[in-house]
Amino acid sequence: MLKHSLTLAVRWSESDPAGIAFYPRFFEWFDVATAALFALIGEPWDRTFRDHDILGVPAVEASATFLAPVRFGDTITIESEVTDVTDKTFRVDHRISVGPTLCATGFERRAWVGQPLAPGGRIRAKSIPDTIRRKLGG
Amino acid sequence: MLKHSLTLAVRWSESDPAGIAFYPRFFEWFDVATAALFALIGEPWDRTFRDHDILGVPAVEASATFLAPVRFGDTITIESEVTDVTDKTFRVDHRISVGPTLCATGFERRAWVGQPLAPGGRIRAKSIPDTIRRKLGG
Amino acid sequence: MLKHSLTLAVRWSESDPAGIAFYPRFFEWFDVATAALFALIGEPWDRTFRDHDILGVPAVEASATFLAPVRFGDTITIESEVTDVTDKTFRVDHRISVGPTLCATGFERRAWVGQPLAPGGRIRAKSIPDTIRRKLGG
Amino acid sequence: MLKHSLTLAVRWSESDPAGIAFYPRFFEWFDVATAALFALIGEPWDRTFRDHDILGVPAVEASATFLAPVRFGDTITIESEVTDVTDKTFRVDHRISVGPTLCATGFERRAWVGQPLAPGGRIRAKSIPDTIRRKLGG
Repeated sequence: MLKHSLTLAVRWSESDPAGIAFYPRFFEWFDVATAALFALIGEPWDRTFRDHDILGVPAVEASATFLAPVRFGDTITIESEVTDVTDKTFRVDHRISVGPTLCATGFERRAWVGQPLAPGGRIRAKSIPDTIRRKLGG
Repeated sequence: MLKHSLTLAVRWSESDPAGIAFYPRFFEWFDVATAALFALIGEPWDRTFRDHDILGVPAVEASATFLAPVRFGDTITIESEVTDVTDKTFRVDHRISVGPTLCATGFERRAWVGQPLAPGGRIRAKSIPDTIRRKLGG
Repeated sequence: MLKHSLTLAVRWSESDPAGIAFYPRFFEWFDVATAALFALIGEPWDRTFRDHDILGVPAVEASATFLAPVRFGDTITIESEVTDVTDKTFRVDHRISVGPTLCATGFERRAWVGQPLAPGGRIRAKSIPDTIRRKLGG
Repeated sequence: MLKHSLTLAVRWSESDPAGIAFYPRFFEWFDVATAALFALIGEPWDRTFRDHDILGVPAVEASATFLAPVRFGDTITIESEVTDVTDKTFRVDHRISVGPTLCATGFERRAWVGQPLAPGGRIRAKSIPDTIRRKLGG
């Protein structure tokens, strides 16, 4: 299925007073990587969400295991792969490394979610359009 | 075991362009809640980490399921409970609600981690001191 | 003019590896305080922006002087006051203290900004409606 | 004096519900750019702060004017230049553009700050070492 890898320089502000990257930042990096996958298939989030009149692809589940610390000064590599596509959701697996050291693994499951009927209202997942599904490799 | 609940007003900046809270913010809220548990037992992170000469209690695993959106203007309630304490790690389960609506559930497993031998070096989990373990309910 | 003060507990993640709050967080706190001013006058941002069909009240200028460090464990008090209202903009002055210690002073000038004509397009400040102007004390 | 420019892709999470970058993010970008200046002169923050046994170079003043919105999907260019070096402080001016559009200008004044005598204690600016001063162009 669809795969991509990207590198990012860890920012000073992404580490906490312990001097290591604050764990929610890993999920922010997962998000950057998933956005990059969509850009890669010609479906950048802003335009695609607008074209399909959806709210977006919010996470319905996210999980990570942290194996080694990441710090300011490190350049991380995020390898991402779409590993499952269902009617309304897709899963992306991520691996974050610094050089040869695997620092974290995890995944996101995201849903294709329509606009609420009223502002602030309930939101519902919808079927992923076939064109998107195909590009994701489903 | 140890339990606590706290409330937070969702910030404008915690929502993304889709108008709903960006999912890594839920993990930031888990972190705020776990820090509050330590304060509650008289072990505020800054002083306790210094007193025990440890790096901190970084997450070794974190996971969440997102059930309903959270938005600017919402006040969230985070209910947190220590559900497991092992020799070197502990687990905290979290539930985030807005009024009667359960919006997310998840957990963190964190380790009691010593300082690296050299700056930027490898870090290792150590045994949680008995006083801390008892206060966590283990 | 309109004044308000609020308190916030500083989060672990708001400090950087130097162990003191990362300076852009002070601007995030200014933003929380300005949002609270609008809530106080019965004009919560989400509903008010929707009712007036505007993009929001983005900053056109922001400035701060940092006098003393703020750290995890501190409870900050933010005193905010609207100090100027022009046709299309308003200024809010902020003072952040920890106990008796003044830690930062600064201000934001924000504009009342309409929606772009096309998504992603240019944005323009508009006249602040009289009802809002009056509530801001202008 | 010392100059540098770098580019960054704007992240989804850096925009707020108005769909434009939240203004404190501009200061985060200023911080990334100033850290990059230090890396450029062979003085990466983590190692340099350790070598000189200082807390860091926290901002004592920061200011910005916002001219045009920045959004997810934009690639920003940050042009930074050290414009003043005093005994204990230095100033960096920043300009953020998207393509030909200047979106923000601003500056940071930062101080060379020693470790507190006791954890959590008062901090004081110290004289910038000559080697650093020379490299900054002062």
